[in-house]
Amino acid sequence: MVHSKPSPATTPTATSATNLDLNGDVADLTATLMDIESVSGNERALADAIESALRKIPSLQVHRDGDSLVARTTLGRAERVILAGHLDTVPLPTTPGSRGTVPSAWDGETLYGRGATDMKGGVAVQLALAATLSEPNRDITFIFYDHEEVEGSKSGLGRLARNNPELLVGDFAILLEPTNGTVEGGCNGTSRYKVRTKGVAAHSARAWMGENAIHAAAPILQILADYQPRTVNVDGLDYRESMNAVRINGGIAGNVIPDACEVEVNYRFAPDKDVAAAEAHVFELFAGFDIIRTDGAGGARPGLQHPVAAAFVAAVGQAPKPKYGWTDVARFSDLGIPAVNFGPGDALLAHSDNEHVTRGAIHECLAALRRWLSAEL
Amino acid sequence: MVHSKPSPATTPTATSATNLDLNGDVADLTATLMDIESVSGNERALADAIESALRKIPSLQVHRDGDSLVARTTLGRAERVILAGHLDTVPLPTTPGSRGTVPSAWDGETLYGRGATDMKGGVAVQLALAATLSEPNRDITFIFYDHEEVEGSKSGLGRLARNNPELLVGDFAILLEPTNGTVEGGCNGTSRYKVRTKGVAAHSARAWMGENAIHAAAPILQILADYQPRTVNVDGLDYRESMNAVRINGGIAGNVIPDACEVEVNYRFAPDKDVAAAEAHVFELFAGFDIIRTDGAGGARPGLQHPVAAAFVAAVGQAPKPKYGWTDVARFSDLGIPAVNFGPGDALLAHSDNEHVTRGAIHECLAALRRWLSAEL
Repeated sequence: MVHSKPSPATTPTATSATNLDLNGDVADLTATLMDIESVSGNERALADAIESALRKIPSLQVHRDGDSLVARTTLGRAERVILAGHLDTVPLPTTPGSRGTVPSAWDGETLYGRGATDMKGGVAVQLALAATLSEPNRDITFIFYDHEEVEGSKSGLGRLARNNPELLVGDFAILLEPTNGTVEGGCNGTSRYKVRTKGVAAHSARAWMGENAIHAAAPILQILADYQPRTVNVDGLDYRESMNAVRINGGIAGNVIPDACEVEVNYRFAPDKDVAAAEAHVFELFAGFDIIRTDGAGGARPGLQHPVAAAFVAAVGQAPKPKYGWTDVARFSDLGIPAVNFGPGDALLAHSDNEHVTRGAIHECLAALRRWLSAEL
Repeated sequence: MVHSKPSPATTPTATSATNLDLNGDVADLTATLMDIESVSGNERALADAIESALRKIPSLQVHRDGDSLVARTTLGRAERVILAGHLDTVPLPTTPGSRGTVPSAWDGETLYGRGATDMKGGVAVQLALAATLSEPNRDITFIFYDHEEVEGSKSGLGRLARNNPELLVGDFAILLEPTNGTVEGGCNGTSRYKVRTKGVAAHSARAWMGENAIHAAAPILQILADYQPRTVNVDGLDYRESMNAVRINGGIAGNVIPDACEVEVNYRFAPDKDVAAAEAHVFELFAGFDIIRTDGAGGARPGLQHPVAAAFVAAVGQAPKPKYGWTDVARFSDLGIPAVNFGPGDALLAHSDNEHVTRGAIHECLAALRRWLSAEL
């Protein structure tokens, strides 16, 4: 049975007065965060609530930039780690009766609703650590940021890096994106291309007076169908690549020989190469065709050979995995900070109408981080 | 130099009062007809002007159905021939400065404008014959009809065949569509198909969890690229076939493995086969693929072995050719009436922004028909 959880989660949407209990059960805190709707562009109420809670913790220096927050300990430790998470979610589902809505709903020990996996659970773990780790073994920089689920130019993390680079200094970063409780290192890069053929238009009743651009695209599709994507080991993790047509378009009418056809190709590449190397590979694959690159973002190496990262992997106690989707670890990588993903919930449920996370997964994530940040160094 | 022809062609667009001079120069009459805008659906003013002119000819029985007209001689001749032409044109060009507009314009002895070739010249020849052939050697049924340039269900000729089949009786039909002064016999059939592939959608960062429907379309395009269209001799004329992708579509987003791809195929087939035989050929070609037929119209055999047709070809004095585009000769063929195309102007200019016809071509067409319809039998 699905039932709404008891108050305060049934309280209507938040105002800046929303009081967050950072010392209670971290899964209940997750539900409270989910009940404050924060679709990209609407993060203010949630940022207000978190700022108010963070400012009550004397050991933290809090900085606000738009709807992003940075809260730092200044204990003079030898190492500083960054724990980062985004406040925004993708839009609410429009399917009637869908579970991925606001407010959240418990079904037994499983919490349903928008943000359950991506990533109010991770944000709740950050907040619980901020409130309860009074003497961490490393200095910690907590980052909560806006606009992750939209175009990169709007990213609150990118804005912080431009406006306040000194706040983003650190030896290692953990992004609390959902990884099912395993460390996922680095990420693949992504790039897009348009491969085009040209022909000569003609009335299809006299087809021999034209040249068919769609027929000319046959070898493009055959190259893609035959392509054997590589798996590349980078710093001990296996990154699986892929090369796919994501769109094809050609033709203007049922009686006209098409004079143009366009195949959009998405190449996801391992972090052993940058965008330029990825482009060179694709251009070679489609040599002789008209091709342009329309998009590109480099990946991130996992960086697990770094001692602080290795210690973290040991504390989690699970074999690390590669991350396939692009995440903000690439942004930290660009800043020279090794970064991994580690958070509660299944990434495959992110953005789905069936988004959910278990109470146990949130507890375990918090416990692993607490263990790592409390151990004697 | 392009200049407007002298009055009455410079008179603004027609009303039912427009007086047509059927006894003057048939090329000047063509220009007058062009100056009465008659894009499909807007044939009324032109039909009114023609009806008024026909009703002044005592030897003709005139019948009107909507904006179509049938005018018949009843001389008790042994044979009856049908001379048919459509009143409508495709829409006016939107390119600024284009010549294919209303009113018409003479450049020397060349007449420019919408309908010059398709087919106000042919209609002018019909009208000149109606007015000047007082003692033809065969009974003649003149048909002027609306809605040829749009979907077949709107065809004025089709409507006449349903409402007044007795008016469409005849031994032979000539459609005055542009053929550059040669007899073009019969026409190819046309049929369209959707050939579809299915896949499994997935995020392109984890492409191996999906199946790419666009890649699966590679063999469809290869079959089309490899296809060798046949040339089929039917009743002495060579009909060139063609098999073409006219549209392709697949994919919904730049980061999603496409789960569907659709190729639209247009098969133009010789009149030795009907739509069912054409479909069987295409289904065999794409055996194993999901395929449906979405459209189909049979062609027409040239029927030139018929004595009345052979006599007409002899009167024209040029070697007959096959017609490739679908025309209403197929409709006459369905009614059991052998039919050919014969008219002034180049069919390749039809629908173009450069539509034009020469004065000489219109005169020659009229002369050939007059010769054939005046000869002693």
